[in-house]
Amino acid sequence: MNFNLEEVLATLTKAKSNVKRRLEDLARIGRDPKGGVTRLAYSQEENFAFDYIKRVGISYGLIAKEDPVGNLYLELPGSPSEDLVIIGSHLDTVPQGGMFDGTVGVICSLEIAKILSQAKLKRKLVIAAFRGEESSRFKISLIGSSIATGQLNPNMLEAKDSKGVKLKDAIRSCGFDPDRLREAVLPLKKIRAYLEYHIEQGPVLEAYGCPVGVVTAIAAPVRYKVSFSGEWAHSGATPMNLRKDALVAAADFVLTVRAICARRGDVVGTVGDLQIPGGSINKVPGEVVLYLDVRGVDLSERERTVQEIFELTRKKAESYSVSMNFMKIEEKFPQKLSNQIIKFLERACDLTNVEYLLMPSGASHDALSFSKVGVPTGMLFCQSKGGISHSPREFSQLDHILAGARALLVATYMLTTASHYS
Amino acid sequence: MNFNLEEVLATLTKAKSNVKRRLEDLARIGRDPKGGVTRLAYSQEENFAFDYIKRVGISYGLIAKEDPVGNLYLELPGSPSEDLVIIGSHLDTVPQGGMFDGTVGVICSLEIAKILSQAKLKRKLVIAAFRGEESSRFKISLIGSSIATGQLNPNMLEAKDSKGVKLKDAIRSCGFDPDRLREAVLPLKKIRAYLEYHIEQGPVLEAYGCPVGVVTAIAAPVRYKVSFSGEWAHSGATPMNLRKDALVAAADFVLTVRAICARRGDVVGTVGDLQIPGGSINKVPGEVVLYLDVRGVDLSERERTVQEIFELTRKKAESYSVSMNFMKIEEKFPQKLSNQIIKFLERACDLTNVEYLLMPSGASHDALSFSKVGVPTGMLFCQSKGGISHSPREFSQLDHILAGARALLVATYMLTTASHYS
Repeated sequence: MNFNLEEVLATLTKAKSNVKRRLEDLARIGRDPKGGVTRLAYSQEENFAFDYIKRVGISYGLIAKEDPVGNLYLELPGSPSEDLVIIGSHLDTVPQGGMFDGTVGVICSLEIAKILSQAKLKRKLVIAAFRGEESSRFKISLIGSSIATGQLNPNMLEAKDSKGVKLKDAIRSCGFDPDRLREAVLPLKKIRAYLEYHIEQGPVLEAYGCPVGVVTAIAAPVRYKVSFSGEWAHSGATPMNLRKDALVAAADFVLTVRAICARRGDVVGTVGDLQIPGGSINKVPGEVVLYLDVRGVDLSERERTVQEIFELTRKKAESYSVSMNFMKIEEKFPQKLSNQIIKFLERACDLTNVEYLLMPSGASHDALSFSKVGVPTGMLFCQSKGGISHSPREFSQLDHILAGARALLVATYMLTTASHYS
Repeated sequence: MNFNLEEVLATLTKAKSNVKRRLEDLARIGRDPKGGVTRLAYSQEENFAFDYIKRVGISYGLIAKEDPVGNLYLELPGSPSEDLVIIGSHLDTVPQGGMFDGTVGVICSLEIAKILSQAKLKRKLVIAAFRGEESSRFKISLIGSSIATGQLNPNMLEAKDSKGVKLKDAIRSCGFDPDRLREAVLPLKKIRAYLEYHIEQGPVLEAYGCPVGVVTAIAAPVRYKVSFSGEWAHSGATPMNLRKDALVAAADFVLTVRAICARRGDVVGTVGDLQIPGGSINKVPGEVVLYLDVRGVDLSERERTVQEIFELTRKKAESYSVSMNFMKIEEKFPQKLSNQIIKFLERACDLTNVEYLLMPSGASHDALSFSKVGVPTGMLFCQSKGGISHSPREFSQLDHILAGARALLVATYMLTTASHYS
């Protein structure tokens, strides 16, 4: 077919019911009895979601390939070139997460591939679904896309989940082979573009009344495990002034993180998990472990924030006679996205009459993995209701989802056909 | 035998190695690979500890009786009277607790019974070991002694542990019958005295350089489950000022409890457990649950403290857009102990040249159950090193343990023989 913009967009509009149905189908895979969807990295539930998407891709005439760690690629057949354009996202969720995070990008990309399978493309179009984007299970994010871009340190395979299962063993239990990491690396020089479509997961687009965002940069997290050691003691027999209460020091840490980050514009800091191993209603806590996540688009500001947090909290912990230790468990670097791709995405929004906002991404995404190795990378967001994500209450309007998909379709077509693009 | 004080005390001194060995034997039952002893209420480990003490008692010529909920009574045979003097304590521990808490009282009482089995007593001497004194498992303390004194509300049997096991089912799984609570109630009017010997679990005796304390009153806890509800959100994409972070509100609660209690002399307040169900390093916490324990010897001061805590923390939670709910899960009332028994214990210390301190107990004990129903009740403490308890580092010197045992022996003899005591 010739690419008739109006015709193609009409086809996509007809695919709206497909998008809705596939989102609902995926939401049933890992539905959590306590609410939301729990589909952790390298879990049975994640496997089922991959199986589902693979079947849909095959039914759309795409060629399914799995790499040795379970990333899924669905290729348009019959490409005249080895040059690639990859569009995709992930399928795993946080515990009790939402049904739009990751899935929107994979599902819309599939519909776009189906439509473009009727077009003459100059480059090979590949739909990608990456494993383990969320860090909930192994405290490591972007697992699949880091491997696909040759960036996963093999030591990371030793990381354990809360039950002591190692990442490498989880990969094996899904039927894959963590010893073949190298074979999972994509031919990076041949990738002309990586595009990812994702829900915003924040409140900015809603505040501006915009359905779609074109992402300019991706903030990235640095993460720490912080341990507090005081003295276990009897909660009745120990006077307040003789206590070494590790939870009091940890609580002060939580409030300090909030106070420091609240007065900085571009950095956010979160204590998302805190545990008292052996905690009991009748004991003064002697040990507390918590996890800190600090993000920003500007690396030096992020570093200044982290330094300030630890300087201040160490002094405070000492004032409670509690010792504090911290260990960096993950560090990702913020990335500016490709100006050339940003221009393509803006043009695609204009052509399809989609209102958009240029904005940074506070959340990290698989796009970060591609941008870091120099692949021209771009992202589109669609509005998240109330800015809520990683929650059963996560929601994006179907009309907003389709608006972003229209821009993604046109941008993908341009990137796979434009002769002047290199 | 006639009661020759010096002879009897010499016999007890010879029993020192018994005391040491039995403490070590019990410390092996439920030894926790992570350190300390974990012997929870109505666990297999608690059962084994009871079996051990029962065998020792029988080998000492005592008559073993178990009530329908597993409390163990070891009676001196051949008593001429139905009037009872009970001495004892408990055998369960907190998770990773110490090897002296509870066990010191039961083990020393057994040695005393063995010695007094040679004496002519006017009243029946019974050694008691109560079930489930610690609240760690079911968030209810003094389970066995509350039942034995007819004070356990049958609704309490529905309380669940962290795995969802109900107290009544745990009792059943140990081979006992929670439907026969009434048969477990002791003939309270016949109990002439209840004496309990226990480690201090606090730092006061060490600070005063005293091996032994004679307890004047028992502080008692009121306990609350406190829930914070905010909004789960993505830790990267949610600006600080738009968060409803339940952990921030909970952290402020922890610090507020400390600040309020630190400026009150006689009240202590502890958050001993805190959980973020579904917490994850990449989520702003939307739900937090914590447990508050407030204790004092003066009821009205304790109540004022609790009121102040909740008034202040509710306002603070609102300032974080987090709602706070609290539920009273347990309330015990502080008790002054029997003046008459205190006099006996002081006299016993004097006769045996044991230095003692008159002091309140910050911790609650099975003695509280007896005092509440009007049984003349007394307690002795021995020094805890560093005031540390409910910890693998809990320690009491054998010499201090024996000092208290001497006083207990003499007081028990006086209470079981004195004709003028009624």
